Amino acid sequence: MTPVERAQMAMVLEVTAYPKPGNVDRCHDYEGTRLEHFLASAVLARPALEKAAAEGCGAGIGEVLREAVRLTTTHRGGNTHFGAFILLVPLLRGGNIEGAARAVRDTTVEDAIQFYRAFSLVKVRMLPSDPLDVSDPKALDHIREKGMTLLDVMDHSKGHDMVAREWVNGFARTRGAADHLRASGCGREGVVAAFLRLLSEEIDTFIVKEHGPLVAEEVRRRAGEVLAGREDLAAFDAECIARGINPGSTADLIIAGIYIALGEGWEWDCSRKG
Amino acid sequence: MTPVERAQMAMVLEVTAYPKPGNVDRCHDYEGTRLEHFLASAVLARPALEKAAAEGCGAGIGEVLREAVRLTTTHRGGNTHFGAFILLVPLLRGGNIEGAARAVRDTTVEDAIQFYRAFSLVKVRMLPSDPLDVSDPKALDHIREKGMTLLDVMDHSKGHDMVAREWVNGFARTRGAADHLRASGCGREGVVAAFLRLLSEEIDTFIVKEHGPLVAEEVRRRAGEVLAGREDLAAFDAECIARGINPGSTADLIIAGIYIALGEGWEWDCSRKG
Repeated sequence: MTPVERAQMAMVLEVTAYPKPGNVDRCHDYEGTRLEHFLASAVLARPALEKAAAEGCGAGIGEVLREAVRLTTTHRGGNTHFGAFILLVPLLRGGNIEGAARAVRDTTVEDAIQFYRAFSLVKVRMLPSDPLDVSDPKALDHIREKGMTLLDVMDHSKGHDMVAREWVNGFARTRGAADHLRASGCGREGVVAAFLRLLSEEIDTFIVKEHGPLVAEEVRRRAGEVLAGREDLAAFDAECIARGINPGSTADLIIAGIYIALGEGWEWDCSRKG
Repeated sequence: MTPVERAQMAMVLEVTAYPKPGNVDRCHDYEGTRLEHFLASAVLARPALEKAAAEGCGAGIGEVLREAVRLTTTHRGGNTHFGAFILLVPLLRGGNIEGAARAVRDTTVEDAIQFYRAFSLVKVRMLPSDPLDVSDPKALDHIREKGMTLLDVMDHSKGHDMVAREWVNGFARTRGAADHLRASGCGREGVVAAFLRLLSEEIDTFIVKEHGPLVAEEVRRRAGEVLAGREDLAAFDAECIARGINPGSTADLIIAGIYIALGEGWEWDCSRKG
């Protein structure tokens, strides 16, 4: 499997794994965003993923992110893999976690500008009154004036966005997700177990943005209860779906973790061991 | 969407559409073959699909088929898209139905030999006491002696294999599947409706091989009852799954039909019309 195929498989395996509390999965759609949108995104992102993986390629990380978003917003399913691309593009560029940490340090002001242009293609919620709010046309001026690289932008967002945080902490949660996968075992069941572990360890910042920190903390705590066998996973999933609680950033981290784990011998196909 | 992406999307949309009587779908796996195997096959077949679509490419249709099967049997999910590739490869080579009909007429003895080598990578059931039985090592001698092209091989199989029949009838059922899709409307619901119509019109030869002609005729008739509102689709699906009745050749034709329909403006994403 090539690195690009690993990235596509990671997107496919994450979205089909079930039951995952609150997210689109094999058995659940959201009103506007269906399983097919995520699978289409995995197929249609390929040219951008190829550019991300190309050595000595002219396209910067910001430009590749913008292309990935452009290719995958041709449908009206809304944002599917924006957060995942923020992790996968440097991972593909760098080859592994250490290489990705180097790749993000090499980003430029131009990468930051391209990233903001990608943002404008999707509706991703930012915090109010943030000088880097994508809906504020002055944000680009601010970036240019301050000479902020894309790594600087992620550093600015690290407090309220666990995906951005990966860029400044050496992809620590991506590493954790891959380790959880390898410890949890092969295939779909391994993905679900790793997802629950990740969710139980840290509040999901996508839930914080949508529902506030108290709900995010409730989900974190109850994911641990599921793991401890004190709460039923299917019922928790159904409740999250009903309340519109969607741990989208944890899903992004799991995708990055699957990408890494596949490269380290984790088996997506349990039947291969038979 | 490029032709290769259309082919990948066709594989993804067919397998996720539900409920389809008897087949692997979003909500059903078979013991050894799971949804993920079909989705992996759609991702991993890409290099072969690219070769199929390449103009003036050196690789013949038989060689491309063999590569597609090789790339998609790295897992142990068994045969996933062998029949679909038999249709998609000439459709990609020819660009559309008329081009595919020309492409199959240009196949050679070498294509037939490569096809038999592809066969040996998967367990596809043949009729007993057939001189072209893939499990008989003399089959290749027979092909060479008689100077049979791959089109001749398909002509030989047309009586008992509706996928092979497409090669000799100008892809008539592929055309029908695309027309059913366009008449049935967009998205997942359109795929299910087209699948039922196709299944109601002709007995599925994969069911014939697995369960005999009486069961295949029963399924054909009852698909019509579902369409007429006289039988419940979910119950029919559950019964087919329980009896191991899998209309696999109809699924192959639907994939080819989606490929064509996507090129003719059929919408896989109903939300685009919103």
